[in-house]
Amino acid sequence: MAEPLFKRLAIIGIGHIGSSIALGLQAVPGTVATLVISDTSPVHLAKAKELRLGDEYFADPGAAVAGADGVILCTPVGSFATIAEAIAPHLAPGCILSDVGSTKQSVLRDVSPHLPPGMPFVPAHPLAGTEFSGPEAGLGDLFQGRWCLLTPEPEADPAAVRKIEALWAALGARTAKMTPAHHDRVIAIVSHLPHLIAFTICGTADDLADETREEVLQFAASGFRDFTRIAASDPVMWRDIFINNKDALLEMFSRFSEDAQAFARAVRWNDTSYIEDRINRSRKIRKSLIDIKQA
Amino acid sequence: MAEPLFKRLAIIGIGHIGSSIALGLQAVPGTVATLVISDTSPVHLAKAKELRLGDEYFADPGAAVAGADGVILCTPVGSFATIAEAIAPHLAPGCILSDVGSTKQSVLRDVSPHLPPGMPFVPAHPLAGTEFSGPEAGLGDLFQGRWCLLTPEPEADPAAVRKIEALWAALGARTAKMTPAHHDRVIAIVSHLPHLIAFTICGTADDLADETREEVLQFAASGFRDFTRIAASDPVMWRDIFINNKDALLEMFSRFSEDAQAFARAVRWNDTSYIEDRINRSRKIRKSLIDIKQA
Repeated sequence: MAEPLFKRLAIIGIGHIGSSIALGLQAVPGTVATLVISDTSPVHLAKAKELRLGDEYFADPGAAVAGADGVILCTPVGSFATIAEAIAPHLAPGCILSDVGSTKQSVLRDVSPHLPPGMPFVPAHPLAGTEFSGPEAGLGDLFQGRWCLLTPEPEADPAAVRKIEALWAALGARTAKMTPAHHDRVIAIVSHLPHLIAFTICGTADDLADETREEVLQFAASGFRDFTRIAASDPVMWRDIFINNKDALLEMFSRFSEDAQAFARAVRWNDTSYIEDRINRSRKIRKSLIDIKQA
Repeated sequence: MAEPLFKRLAIIGIGHIGSSIALGLQAVPGTVATLVISDTSPVHLAKAKELRLGDEYFADPGAAVAGADGVILCTPVGSFATIAEAIAPHLAPGCILSDVGSTKQSVLRDVSPHLPPGMPFVPAHPLAGTEFSGPEAGLGDLFQGRWCLLTPEPEADPAAVRKIEALWAALGARTAKMTPAHHDRVIAIVSHLPHLIAFTICGTADDLADETREEVLQFAASGFRDFTRIAASDPVMWRDIFINNKDALLEMFSRFSEDAQAFARAVRWNDTSYIEDRINRSRKIRKSLIDIKQA
């Protein structure tokens, strides 16, 4: 490539997603000329340096974004307002700002007010990640074949949107656009609610009498282990997601609770046709998922 | 082996578990001299024959158990009372009866009253299985390294218990003994409740507005897919499990519901320390699981 996509790209927050972007970019040389890494945690920053994830390293996010033509916020979404305020005075004209947050209405709410007028902001959310965290959890192929959802506002600069799409394409991801509100509802049911449930059921098991708890651990292979894999995810990241997508999450939780109560009631009263009907509907959805995956 | 463990073993119900036992036994020749297979479904029985899963095939369970020194019930637990009644007159003296049902108090309740006095009954529950079903879903190594829980009554013949333990050891499983009541509580939380939740959340997603539902399928990789894998499981098997372990299941569901409501309330009121505490507890449990697996 004659011209890099970004001359100087700053990654703010070098956790699991930030480090995966950094490693992914190493596999497509020429996409980014200089990769700048910033993290307020000295431990994370030192680890990133040790792993040679970038070209330059800054504890201060303001210093990191100076002169950059691209900035990606990769910290927990609860920190976005503070970071946006901190970096705003240092953003170069023409710089494109993006992020990887799992909640998109809150990101617009927290970031946009701080930005210089006309600065392009292209919120993004890669649907990828494992239950591991930190710069040492980076995976260069994490985004290969995965979706990255973009939620730019209608008036967003199309050229800026295309550059962020190109960045994710370079990392192997497919992109799709939707409104922030729609994103937040879809992700509430496919990701946020499953995490809330997984975190909860681990606690429920932990509260059981000692003898039972021991055996929960021992015999967890029967569903519990798969079911709770996502419960090992990062506490601060997930605390921020829950709080910042509470409307959609609580609506989905409320729908789920009603359905679960109805299911439990059917079990109590031996309503076999209700139970079979619900199980058959579930299987149909699972089949659709498998069909889509195979397509 | 000079002497087989069972001269004539009858598997009643050739679904996913029955066919996995049959295939597993083919890998340890000499353990069972003659394997008899019975299924009231002509389609399943024909398939079992075509796959050469056994040595003899009977639609009628009574005919299948005649002359057998071992019988394993592998049908959904809701059918156990009917099957026990049907086979009881045909059971040979000295025959050992076992099963693979996921609920153990109900199995004792439904089977024991039909048995001839003194006939050894050793209930068992292998903690293994996939979301697939039917005789073609059999896996010869399904039980390798997995647990099989035995819940014999205190007065059970120790020699019969040892034979069933040896059968599961031949299939590669580790065995543990516990009371039926304790089994039902442990399995309610590690398996039955996760299934109820997975079945429910698929339905909740299916009830969403069309546009959202489409995208739930498209973007399911973000947790939902893993989380709902078990929701593809067999409807009749799971209907029977829920109904036959309702006391333990409803108690665990009730505990889980309280905990989930408390979590949702913390999200609504921005109770970040509660949320972080719950997530940290979950991670600890997940870590224990990983430690046990590595041990």
